[in-house]
Amino acid sequence: MTIEGRAEPQAAARQSTLRTSNLGLVLRTVCAAPDPVSRADIAVSTGMTRSTASRLVDDLVSAGLVEEAERTAGPVRGRPATPLLPGRTAAALGLQVDAGRLAARVVDLGGRVVAERLVDGDWVGSDPGTTLDQVGGLAAVVLADVPEEMRLVGAGLALPGIVDAARGVLLRAPNLGWHDVRPADVLAAHLPAGLDAVLGNEADLAARTVAESAPGRPGAHRDFLYVSGQIGVGGAVVLDGRVMRGNAGWAGEVGHVCVDPDGPPCRCGSTGCLEQYAGRHALLAAAGLPRDASPDLLLDTAAAGDPRARAALDVARRALAVALASVLNVLDIPTVVLGGHLGRLATDLRPGLEDDLATRVLSARWRRPRIEAAGPDSAPAATGAALHALGDVLADPVGWLD
Amino acid sequence: MTIEGRAEPQAAARQSTLRTSNLGLVLRTVCAAPDPVSRADIAVSTGMTRSTASRLVDDLVSAGLVEEAERTAGPVRGRPATPLLPGRTAAALGLQVDAGRLAARVVDLGGRVVAERLVDGDWVGSDPGTTLDQVGGLAAVVLADVPEEMRLVGAGLALPGIVDAARGVLLRAPNLGWHDVRPADVLAAHLPAGLDAVLGNEADLAARTVAESAPGRPGAHRDFLYVSGQIGVGGAVVLDGRVMRGNAGWAGEVGHVCVDPDGPPCRCGSTGCLEQYAGRHALLAAAGLPRDASPDLLLDTAAAGDPRARAALDVARRALAVALASVLNVLDIPTVVLGGHLGRLATDLRPGLEDDLATRVLSARWRRPRIEAAGPDSAPAATGAALHALGDVLADPVGWLD
Repeated sequence: MTIEGRAEPQAAARQSTLRTSNLGLVLRTVCAAPDPVSRADIAVSTGMTRSTASRLVDDLVSAGLVEEAERTAGPVRGRPATPLLPGRTAAALGLQVDAGRLAARVVDLGGRVVAERLVDGDWVGSDPGTTLDQVGGLAAVVLADVPEEMRLVGAGLALPGIVDAARGVLLRAPNLGWHDVRPADVLAAHLPAGLDAVLGNEADLAARTVAESAPGRPGAHRDFLYVSGQIGVGGAVVLDGRVMRGNAGWAGEVGHVCVDPDGPPCRCGSTGCLEQYAGRHALLAAAGLPRDASPDLLLDTAAAGDPRARAALDVARRALAVALASVLNVLDIPTVVLGGHLGRLATDLRPGLEDDLATRVLSARWRRPRIEAAGPDSAPAATGAALHALGDVLADPVGWLD
Repeated sequence: MTIEGRAEPQAAARQSTLRTSNLGLVLRTVCAAPDPVSRADIAVSTGMTRSTASRLVDDLVSAGLVEEAERTAGPVRGRPATPLLPGRTAAALGLQVDAGRLAARVVDLGGRVVAERLVDGDWVGSDPGTTLDQVGGLAAVVLADVPEEMRLVGAGLALPGIVDAARGVLLRAPNLGWHDVRPADVLAAHLPAGLDAVLGNEADLAARTVAESAPGRPGAHRDFLYVSGQIGVGGAVVLDGRVMRGNAGWAGEVGHVCVDPDGPPCRCGSTGCLEQYAGRHALLAAAGLPRDASPDLLLDTAAAGDPRARAALDVARRALAVALASVLNVLDIPTVVLGGHLGRLATDLRPGLEDDLATRVLSARWRRPRIEAAGPDSAPAATGAALHALGDVLADPVGWLD
């Protein structure tokens, strides 16, 4: 594994703006395609000449950002076409800290998980330095597993709170009990020199894995509200495949939508927030189960006729209906994707939730809101953090050429 | 007054795309400037040559979209510059129907109200045909007041509900009790042939008057949540000066954010919606005042020590805090602009509301949300409907040249 520093991308961009922009276009075309494309396909879809497209592909292949697969049977006449795929040797490190799980993952440009380590536990009220030291240790283990020929193009760290990404500061993560934490100071001891982990919000980054099935490849949904069921509840608004940042990058905090102003106090300082009903700890406590119980145990207990488990699920569903209807009324988005433990409860929650939304959303008569479950990934925000770093390469690959 | 049909704008655009785009740029530069600009100013700010800018200005002056004011004292040497202003002879008709007021207004390209008629009343549960006939009558009266030399470039109709603008249908306006109404069928009898009123949501259009102080001129705020206090409560999300449409154009329904799921039933079919506490009818009923009482009477009654009036204001304030905090947590917007009766109550509501938001908004410690009052305009959505029509001219003026 080598760690890449980007050599003067601004200067390169000035030297040849058109080439820069066309290189990005070719790379994004290869990455966005659901099936391998040929140089000729790229020329057609980008409007470049065949020779320009071919030259740019060659540059990307040399840099390992695109790779050539085995030639398949081509047209009846002429040379068989060489199928092009996203490069397997370019990858990024994604880290995730939440109150119930630490994760470190390396994801390549094709979206494959190259190496990963996950640790479950309870980091509510934990010491930031100790916890970041743990995740840094995981990162070091994972990086040691990465093959020698792989180039690491960036890193990201997903945190369950509001972050100032530009300054590299976690401002506040209520469920961790952290505020004003600068992770780079601790992570530097574990990461290779020159590799800085860009901070992002856990739900924003997890939502990227729904919007993108692989780096630069459109996923199952492009306009949706993502609700991340963690120990608390996070969220992200995704419009046209892009996570809505808001004015300061703090948009999407659906877990702190108020469901009942007279409800229980929340760690954030408010009362009756959605996560006090639908967060994992709140839900399991209401069901009388230990707070490290799995969503499956909760479902099984309810299915076995336990009234507390059933009531906890119903309370969570009603709270979700109230909060989500409010958000859908304001945002006019047709789809909600449930992730984390809420995704694993989706089959139980969906029918009643969709009915409740049909009553509470003003426009439901014309377009009934739909509830979907995110995929079963156990650390989507770690993947999202890697997608974010890889997205920078897709946006402007010129700094990564040899 | 003449009614303008746009002659083949697509064909014109094809003939000279650059000229089209530069004409729009020059017109928008004149309209955006807070003070009159000269041909030389336009050349500098657009990067065009002086002669190109001057020729395009001449075309816009001929068409009445730009006008030349008296020459003022220019530089020490050389000809005095001719100050340029948005044309006074180009104007649009804005209509507004809400459950408590009908309005018709003609607004010119400089943002001046040329003529208007407002009628207050009670149109809750009214017959759509009869009411639209009334507003059509107002439109006819207003248009008769417009000077002969004025060119009418478009029209808009603001409605307090969710609309399908492309199909020209009001889908649902809970407080009017209307659904599936096609206003054009009734309005056609009153409006000049060829003048179709484009439908828009009342709060979306009122919010435009905050984002734009005149057609194309930036207003006091560019990123804000607009809350329109009417008989119910409407809303609009404005990002970078543009009203957020949402997936189907129905975004912004903050009046139907749920404040308390066990609260009173709302006309929309849900329960505990914000407008059940902060809408004008709800507020006045809670205060024991007649439902046509003014916001000033409510304030005076509360100031005189009447406990019901004070309690009604406090309930509205707490409901606004719950609903607005939820929206700000999801959207990460720093400013709320209160319009309609809520704007007139802003001085009373603001201190407590800002304190409540500081507790309930997750990011408030880093950026405390602010409450502002919209201006005193009594029919901002009518102006907004005209701004919308004038905005089409600013986007592409070529169809309006002689």
